[in-house]
Amino acid sequence: MAMSKPKVFEKPRGVKDYLPDLADKLRRIEWRMLDCMARWGYRQIITPTLEYYDTVGLASSTANERLFKLLDNKGTTLVLRSEMTAPIARVVASLLKDEALPLRLSHHSNVFRAIEEEAGREWEFFQTGVELVGDGSPEADAEVIALMASCLKAAGVRDFKIALGHIGVLNGVFSASLPDRPEQQQTLRECLLKRNYVGFRAALKGMDLSPEARTNLERILRLRGGREVCDEALAIVGDETSRTALAHLRDVWDALKAYGVGDTVMIDLTMIGNFTYYTGLIFEGYAADLGFPLCSGGRYDNLLAAFGRPAPATGFALETNRIVLVADDMPKDERRVLVLYRKPRREEALARAMALRRETETAVAVETVFMPDGETADVSGGEGQWVFRGRRYDDVLRFDE
Amino acid sequence: MAMSKPKVFEKPRGVKDYLPDLADKLRRIEWRMLDCMARWGYRQIITPTLEYYDTVGLASSTANERLFKLLDNKGTTLVLRSEMTAPIARVVASLLKDEALPLRLSHHSNVFRAIEEEAGREWEFFQTGVELVGDGSPEADAEVIALMASCLKAAGVRDFKIALGHIGVLNGVFSASLPDRPEQQQTLRECLLKRNYVGFRAALKGMDLSPEARTNLERILRLRGGREVCDEALAIVGDETSRTALAHLRDVWDALKAYGVGDTVMIDLTMIGNFTYYTGLIFEGYAADLGFPLCSGGRYDNLLAAFGRPAPATGFALETNRIVLVADDMPKDERRVLVLYRKPRREEALARAMALRRETETAVAVETVFMPDGETADVSGGEGQWVFRGRRYDDVLRFDE
Repeated sequence: MAMSKPKVFEKPRGVKDYLPDLADKLRRIEWRMLDCMARWGYRQIITPTLEYYDTVGLASSTANERLFKLLDNKGTTLVLRSEMTAPIARVVASLLKDEALPLRLSHHSNVFRAIEEEAGREWEFFQTGVELVGDGSPEADAEVIALMASCLKAAGVRDFKIALGHIGVLNGVFSASLPDRPEQQQTLRECLLKRNYVGFRAALKGMDLSPEARTNLERILRLRGGREVCDEALAIVGDETSRTALAHLRDVWDALKAYGVGDTVMIDLTMIGNFTYYTGLIFEGYAADLGFPLCSGGRYDNLLAAFGRPAPATGFALETNRIVLVADDMPKDERRVLVLYRKPRREEALARAMALRRETETAVAVETVFMPDGETADVSGGEGQWVFRGRRYDDVLRFDE
Repeated sequence: MAMSKPKVFEKPRGVKDYLPDLADKLRRIEWRMLDCMARWGYRQIITPTLEYYDTVGLASSTANERLFKLLDNKGTTLVLRSEMTAPIARVVASLLKDEALPLRLSHHSNVFRAIEEEAGREWEFFQTGVELVGDGSPEADAEVIALMASCLKAAGVRDFKIALGHIGVLNGVFSASLPDRPEQQQTLRECLLKRNYVGFRAALKGMDLSPEARTNLERILRLRGGREVCDEALAIVGDETSRTALAHLRDVWDALKAYGVGDTVMIDLTMIGNFTYYTGLIFEGYAADLGFPLCSGGRYDNLLAAFGRPAPATGFALETNRIVLVADDMPKDERRVLVLYRKPRREEALARAMALRRETETAVAVETVFMPDGETADVSGGEGQWVFRGRRYDDVLRFDE
């Protein structure tokens, strides 16, 4: 393969630099969301970027070709973590194995997934999230969903909706309508995962089905809306598991009203969820004008068992690099001060700068600039609006005369 | 090679999990240091974890065998960044190429270097640092050193010293005493890098030297102390470059006194510096009882040219995963509240929890726990010191009667 070397100023296509304005906003959003999680009793843990492929890599259920892999010095395959749920499950089952459940944990991390370049998406992205381990109740599902809504508000996202679904419902419809036809089930699932409803209908047309099964499968696409969707679904599903799932979903809906976030949720039983480890309630958050989710999560009651400590669990991740695109900016109210000085008054100037920086009442950014002899300081503007070397300052203190 | 698969609960040897107490402390330290940097006018940028080997990988001057490498889908070699100076130089020379100098940038990142396992050191570590690009004055060196001292104080490190050195001085002594003997120079440099002074003396014994050269090289080891070290060094070095270097170092020393950090600095002209791109003043910070540096930095006036925008620059990185080991803990004063409830009073309990979480006057962590029918809440302790399921709370609000 003929290859050209990258140019010195280049970075790989799938990664991104964040310049100060965007980086500031991203950090403010992360900080506000972590503060929100702390107020709900979630404590942060940090896990490594590099994990074993055979443990966390496989448990993460990220498609093999999307994992970044490398070898350690013993020839064991490592991966760059592709999400945070599996690593945290590993820690809950090992270092935290003696801690009583339920455990409330938060995290804030960069995760990695290889994406086709043409899709214009990134390999590395930032997630802030929580895991609530050891509580299988509808109350636990409602807690993390309400917390996700609080985080979005804290981040400055004004218009958002959270869609709720349940793995069990679709499983019930499929096994009732397409028994022993896993390939056809898979075809329909993939259409739903891509929200390709036209494809779903086309696939149905090509299937040999009883009139009743056909009707029920067609009705899936309409299972989106308010609490009444649960009643519509009850008309389609007959098995006990699915009916239990719908009762659970309805209970979560009611608890969410108690949290005061009833207005922001809707039910979408066509949702499939990003991860194969999901076992129950799943959810995704959307901003008004954005086609892709800002955050998502769900219940994964079997994952902890894979790490040797069986326990029900639920959680979510907020994609901060998407949220930064839609959140209101809440820039900090910061006074920018320039201290200009020459050698004879250096001591005085630097001491003044240090005193200003110690003021903790207001946010302040103090830059000191040394003017060599013979160079003139070209400060323009006036009263509260100064400009020096293309940058704006609220104040200029001069020790250069 | 016969290999055993890692067990499910295992993580790779060279990486670490941070549980909540340590993670909290680490995040507090990072936050305080970044706040300190902002007060000095430094603005944060974020660069990707993955960079090209041929650009940032090589410019980072990390030994080849210590870089984590992987291939992208076109077969180009990528690295996990091993430090932050080279990536930031890339951004300053590309995305920020139209921004006037000097530029003050801060960062907060995880970096990766493969280390022999037996050394017990980590592959991934956390750095918070700054780069000051476009100012070659002693004032610029003093600024970043004084800022580093402020960051250490802000992080809660009480007893620390910062050692100052200068690449130019040793270069001068070596080229005067060992002209055209690069291998012997290298031997001595490696002894100094490892602080192996016994080895340094032994190596000198084996070299064929004039009495004057031998005396001068022996005197290097004594070039540690206060400002007087500069005068001692002037007696050894004769060439103009070295003498300019010493004048520069003396000027930085005086400026640091103006910053009020004169007491924390010392001169150590035997310092070599971690990175081959250093060209001038270098420095390292040490805590009283710790054998390894907490932070280090230096001037790198040629690195920006390698990315196409020649400019002098200096900066440092604080190793937060080392600082967390020696810093005073400054836990946040947080009120932990437990809200216990059963279904009939769910609405009331959750509304109360939400109201408490909105109190922004004090830090508060409110956990809600749903009690299923038939299960009794076993709360022990009393007045301000409650215990439930092994965890402590300042307050318990009961909606479970």
